[in-house]
Amino acid sequence: MSHELDILALGNAIVDVIARAQDDFLVRQGVAKGSMTLIDEAQAEKLYAAMGPATIVSGGSAANTVVGAASFGARCGFVGRIKNDAVGDVFAHDIVKSGVAFGTAAATDGPATARSFILVTPDGERTMNTYLGACQNLSEADVDPATVARAKVTYLEGYLWDPPAAKAAFRKAAELAHAAGREVALTLSDTFCVDRYRGEFRELIRTGAVDLVFANEHELKSLYETADFDTALDGLRTEAKRAAVTRSEKGAVIIEGSLTMAVPATPIETLVDATGAGDAYAAGFLFGYTAGMGYEKAGRLGALAASHVIQKIGARPAVPLKELAEQVGVL
Amino acid sequence: MSHELDILALGNAIVDVIARAQDDFLVRQGVAKGSMTLIDEAQAEKLYAAMGPATIVSGGSAANTVVGAASFGARCGFVGRIKNDAVGDVFAHDIVKSGVAFGTAAATDGPATARSFILVTPDGERTMNTYLGACQNLSEADVDPATVARAKVTYLEGYLWDPPAAKAAFRKAAELAHAAGREVALTLSDTFCVDRYRGEFRELIRTGAVDLVFANEHELKSLYETADFDTALDGLRTEAKRAAVTRSEKGAVIIEGSLTMAVPATPIETLVDATGAGDAYAAGFLFGYTAGMGYEKAGRLGALAASHVIQKIGARPAVPLKELAEQVGVL
Repeated sequence: MSHELDILALGNAIVDVIARAQDDFLVRQGVAKGSMTLIDEAQAEKLYAAMGPATIVSGGSAANTVVGAASFGARCGFVGRIKNDAVGDVFAHDIVKSGVAFGTAAATDGPATARSFILVTPDGERTMNTYLGACQNLSEADVDPATVARAKVTYLEGYLWDPPAAKAAFRKAAELAHAAGREVALTLSDTFCVDRYRGEFRELIRTGAVDLVFANEHELKSLYETADFDTALDGLRTEAKRAAVTRSEKGAVIIEGSLTMAVPATPIETLVDATGAGDAYAAGFLFGYTAGMGYEKAGRLGALAASHVIQKIGARPAVPLKELAEQVGVL
Repeated sequence: MSHELDILALGNAIVDVIARAQDDFLVRQGVAKGSMTLIDEAQAEKLYAAMGPATIVSGGSAANTVVGAASFGARCGFVGRIKNDAVGDVFAHDIVKSGVAFGTAAATDGPATARSFILVTPDGERTMNTYLGACQNLSEADVDPATVARAKVTYLEGYLWDPPAAKAAFRKAAELAHAAGREVALTLSDTFCVDRYRGEFRELIRTGAVDLVFANEHELKSLYETADFDTALDGLRTEAKRAAVTRSEKGAVIIEGSLTMAVPATPIETLVDATGAGDAYAAGFLFGYTAGMGYEKAGRLGALAASHVIQKIGARPAVPLKELAEQVGVL
């Protein structure tokens, strides 16, 4: 393929196993509500045995974002490592049938395809427990320079810093993108992820290795180690070229230099499962951004996509987002 | 376990792979909309490769029914054959964590755990394509006489007549139940299933091998080979001890001798996925029936359960049905 891509995402290739749970179950399992905790295979088996009946759907933060962007009509690709097992087949089937180009070779040995065991509490909040498995073997060799050069934006998830080899793939992709005159976007992924890699993330932003930062309010506060949103936002404004910061029902703030644009959240009826809210926001924003629609429209598309995915189980859209956006007059 | 069961179900142990599809996709695949078509492994692979991104959830008609009944508070068991593979693990996990006793040994060789590839069209109708796999090896040996004797009602799905050995298990379970002074319920499952086994199903009903028949309008018309609902209902009234016949949004009719009781459907907002509507109706009805609540309340519980499962993806309840029934004042 030699045509241009709007977005190329690098991320952990994960299948989600989603079950409802009460808050006291989280307490008994010792997991931090609302966060992503890394677990090993034995912990994964133990947690699965304890959790309730589950719905299995493809996930992965950056993968969700390109699937969402493709649903709006963006031309997208994904780089991520699965194994050639039943779970890997599910991941590959779903992302390809979502219209995203996906050609990373599946591992033939080593750990199994990654799964995230997601507990959804009655308030709709999701708590993720991720077995990284085959994602640990994503490496620089999986990053094809020609593919990166074809993409307007290379989108990288902070979670990639957990598997050591993937971090090198992340850095290589960012360098290749800039060498080709393209842009790089980063999502901070999770407050604990920011805790683990704060210094490195700050450096990526400060040095201009990324051109666009996605974060939610909690991740941003963690990045600048402050409880005050405005202080954190000022910190980001000083260091980042541009950023979109989501604040759940309070909407999002887009900043670039001295510009500050607040875009309200799209109202919802019922919060069913918050899984993928940030991923969907990035999907809508990046679709609008790479299509040159301007920040306000990009922000509205992000808000719309987020409102859709949190009113159902799972992180990916249940309807074509382009049609949804047309129906409500955002496109 | 020696305690009494309310419902013991025998059925095909299936995991559902559910994707949205347009009507023309069904036409191209050559499948009959709204029905269940049996497919082999090669057809399953071909269909999965053609269909869109999917949601994977446990299914199986009779299995869905006992999961639903258990969600109301009934004590339930299930007999059905999986293989010890990843899909079988999902089935076993989900049914056990739903509170249903499930002890059928998993096959260690032979065909894989069954999957039904379900296409949901924009009107919410579901079209099922089922690879029976390991279900083909369910046999009389899997039916434990003591367990059947402990159950108030042994519930059998018509689909069991597709795998030949399962038919023998079905007959054995029905005989054991009656020998223990218990009741037997049958669901007709599907119009094409009725087409395949019309004579035998009629005989089961006429000879009293089953005490309670579940059917939808279309299956009933197929059973009596008539396009007229009242003619079909009269036929069933003459031959069956008692029956509950569902008519989608027109509600259900419960008959026993000269008694006819119409119970309205529970109104819904949006039909999302009709998968499991009949299974859920049987769940609510059997819970009420085995608890001695009378036909009207049993019918209302059935209607409520059906209305819940068709407003979401997948055939099993997303909330405890007991709580839902209490909230709306049916319990």
